[in-house]
Amino acid sequence: MVEVKSFATTRRFDAAKMQKLALFESERFFCDIYCLLPGQEQKPHAHEGSDKVYAVLEGKVEVRVAGETATLSQGEAALAPAGKEHAVANRSGAPAALLVFLAPPPSHG
Amino acid sequence: MVEVKSFATTRRFDAAKMQKLALFESERFFCDIYCLLPGQEQKPHAHEGSDKVYAVLEGKVEVRVAGETATLSQGEAALAPAGKEHAVANRSGAPAALLVFLAPPPSHG
Repeated sequence: MVEVKSFATTRRFDAAKMQKLALFESERFFCDIYCLLPGQEQKPHAHEGSDKVYAVLEGKVEVRVAGETATLSQGEAALAPAGKEHAVANRSGAPAALLVFLAPPPSHG
Repeated sequence: MVEVKSFATTRRFDAAKMQKLALFESERFFCDIYCLLPGQEQKPHAHEGSDKVYAVLEGKVEVRVAGETATLSQGEAALAPAGKEHAVANRSGAPAALLVFLAPPPSHG
């Protein structure tokens, strides 16, 4: 069986905080859906050895990478290179959903 | 400057063959847009140490992984794990576009 997932309908929004839903996961990468209600964010952080791509599936988000900010709308993607502090926030009035790739998975420890 | 690309408008179709357009590229992953006209395909191949995700942005494609086949429509994604033979074909009557992640980049040689 081919492993198939829907990135169009995989959503869960929670007023408590941004939701992160795993779409695919391997030892080589994470592929998640991030769901952000208005006002929610993922705080600034960095992955020393992992690159991240944020791809906006719906809504509008503010992506910050290494102190620079870009507003991304549906259909736009941004790169957060390894070692650079990055964050994403929904400062719009509508829900936002992102397809997020992280490779390789960050090491824990 | 945050590196921002459009996965909604990055397209190039060519009657000669499937087009592969780089969106982001690092030493840790490739992120490409594949553009397939009706009848076009990427032939079966395998990456020994790299996982691939096919995410359908528009149209409909047939994804084959390790001898199994799935038809994916817009909004659906499939995983082709490392070492498994995989292929993608547009057997529909309309153009198709995919967002494709490959991690890590395959080694050449």
